Amino acid sequence: MVVRQAQVFRDKQDINLLTGHCAEKIDPDRQTVSGMTLAGDRFEFPYDKLLIATGGAAIKPDLAGFDLPGVVVLKNLADGRKIKKLLKSKGIKKAVIIGMGYIALEMCESLVGLNIAVDMVKPNPVFLPWLEPSMAQVIQTELEAKGVGVYAGHAVELIDKTADGLQVKCRGLTLAADMVLVGIGITPCSRIAENAGLELSTNNSIAVDRKLRTSDKNIYAAGDCADAFHMVTGQKTWIPLALRANRAGWAVADNVIGKHASLDGVVGTSVFRVFDYEVARTGLSLAEARKAGFEAVENSIQSSSRAHSYGVGHPIWVNLIGDNKSGRLLGAQIVGKEGAAHRINGPAVALHNRMTVAQYSQTDLAYAPPFGPTWDPTLTAANQLLKKL
Amino acid sequence: MVVRQAQVFRDKQDINLLTGHCAEKIDPDRQTVSGMTLAGDRFEFPYDKLLIATGGAAIKPDLAGFDLPGVVVLKNLADGRKIKKLLKSKGIKKAVIIGMGYIALEMCESLVGLNIAVDMVKPNPVFLPWLEPSMAQVIQTELEAKGVGVYAGHAVELIDKTADGLQVKCRGLTLAADMVLVGIGITPCSRIAENAGLELSTNNSIAVDRKLRTSDKNIYAAGDCADAFHMVTGQKTWIPLALRANRAGWAVADNVIGKHASLDGVVGTSVFRVFDYEVARTGLSLAEARKAGFEAVENSIQSSSRAHSYGVGHPIWVNLIGDNKSGRLLGAQIVGKEGAAHRINGPAVALHNRMTVAQYSQTDLAYAPPFGPTWDPTLTAANQLLKKL
Repeated sequence: MVVRQAQVFRDKQDINLLTGHCAEKIDPDRQTVSGMTLAGDRFEFPYDKLLIATGGAAIKPDLAGFDLPGVVVLKNLADGRKIKKLLKSKGIKKAVIIGMGYIALEMCESLVGLNIAVDMVKPNPVFLPWLEPSMAQVIQTELEAKGVGVYAGHAVELIDKTADGLQVKCRGLTLAADMVLVGIGITPCSRIAENAGLELSTNNSIAVDRKLRTSDKNIYAAGDCADAFHMVTGQKTWIPLALRANRAGWAVADNVIGKHASLDGVVGTSVFRVFDYEVARTGLSLAEARKAGFEAVENSIQSSSRAHSYGVGHPIWVNLIGDNKSGRLLGAQIVGKEGAAHRINGPAVALHNRMTVAQYSQTDLAYAPPFGPTWDPTLTAANQLLKKL
Repeated sequence: MVVRQAQVFRDKQDINLLTGHCAEKIDPDRQTVSGMTLAGDRFEFPYDKLLIATGGAAIKPDLAGFDLPGVVVLKNLADGRKIKKLLKSKGIKKAVIIGMGYIALEMCESLVGLNIAVDMVKPNPVFLPWLEPSMAQVIQTELEAKGVGVYAGHAVELIDKTADGLQVKCRGLTLAADMVLVGIGITPCSRIAENAGLELSTNNSIAVDRKLRTSDKNIYAAGDCADAFHMVTGQKTWIPLALRANRAGWAVADNVIGKHASLDGVVGTSVFRVFDYEVARTGLSLAEARKAGFEAVENSIQSSSRAHSYGVGHPIWVNLIGDNKSGRLLGAQIVGKEGAAHRINGPAVALHNRMTVAQYSQTDLAYAPPFGPTWDPTLTAANQLLKKL
């Protein structure tokens, strides 16, 4: 989300930034981009090098009632403003969130903070499917303790308007709401690239190489519209997150001016906060690892955010996934009220280096009583996983 | 610090744990340990494999007055109990701490928390010499804001007893105190090893190989008495810290029963809290790196513990040290009120893998607004250091 005025780009960076210009077509042979302005004038610009940074768009299912007023998504600044306006203008007392990913969970926390009753619903019966089940249960219990209704396993069929507001009709369940937030993920905005004949990749993202070049050497793509190499699987992946998007933008700028930037890839690190909990992951989940062909084994442990000698800490749970064949560390998940978020970076750096679980278990991590036990919880988890490998 | 009753070892683990037995001599040829009990009886035990785990001892300078009542050190449980008793029995209003390492700083925080006025003094005029100067200044300013007197650059000459209490007489400075804590570091308890003809190493620690064997193949050493390989320099080092000590103990146990455990080494990661600040380091400081023969360059940056969009965060400072020849990352230091302690583990794991600064700058670290900016502060620091290499 760029929170900067267009004029800044024009004045400070000498960029001819044209808002209100809808690009419709890329002609790779003639090296032009054409489209129409909001005023209805057609335009065509030539390029030497082109960057596609069209981002992603929130997914709205093609079902009845999803176009009703009060049904919203949250992807960009305009969406956020629309939600804020809705919350102000109407007495929103009850919200239904469709989806249980981290945007859905972060919005859940925000809405509960505004004293709005929240129900969450999704078709998959498993709450956070990528997370080790007992750790996912910790988060679900937290949500329910905050009064949130968690309805996993109910496919949404339609949204209805009633005299009182909205009704989300699901298989075996009807939920009333003043506002419905659809948070079921995003899809890459790759249509213009596809129409130009550029190669697409996983989830219809635009395929790019390590230099962020598409299948046309004069066209780059970066941000949520483009794919990346996953450094654990070695395969292409599409994980639309801010750091990669930002890093890819810089790399394209370097490449366009001849600096030859090359990006290794991602390991799939992400983190979010939901109420009092930090939830962090990196690498592959057990299911993802098995799907990628690894002989994957996982093991979760409970430790503490502080040393026993240092007053009351909080439980911290760590799940590590390893490959039984190579011994490689494949992924990590951490949940806790403190010390969970930043702790994921040790395993993340380990994944970049293809460390084995045994090698990771030997790393010299920080210890002091206010910050954890002598053995960092990720090390205890590694020691325990080693017994299973 | 083992907080467990001797009887537990005897009952649960079938270990013939003998307290009150002072081991005085190792005879490596006859494979015996001999000494005297507190009751005055001599003993001698044979061994197949021997572990020396004598730890370290607090250093007390050989100067007048350091044996006065009210002059204390803090290394073991008995020291802690002595200090607690002193604090209870006497109306301690003013303490002088000699030394400014992390034990000295942690004790400073504890004493100030008990409403005791604290002055700190040491000979070196540089406050935290291993820390980038502007970051060290942040901590010194914090101490002074809490009312602590920080007197760096004053060699202590003696401690005097006066009618009121104690006087610490330094070059150009006299400090009054009811209690004096000597926190100038520890020394390895290696005399018994030295007398047995075992090879000593840096700081007179006991030299051990990766299997924790001393120069005698039947004798192991582990804990604060033993040295380690430093994975950044490749040289031997002596950094007495809890994780390595604990890990080495386990490894010896494995080796004795024939499991062949081998420890890679340490990278010198440590962390402490002082008042509101977390201070973390890993690897080499600029001076240490230059001393080790690297063409070392450092660069420090200031970032934030939260994203700008997420309310008020705290400043977080990161200093990275890199090698101009190889491009390798050599060390990292982080200071801040939140998110500093655990953030050091990413660079620590990078050091284990001999990553270059460029490689580290490409790592996929966690981002969410409550936990930092899109670019983790350590990544921003890496990007900036790259411009200097």
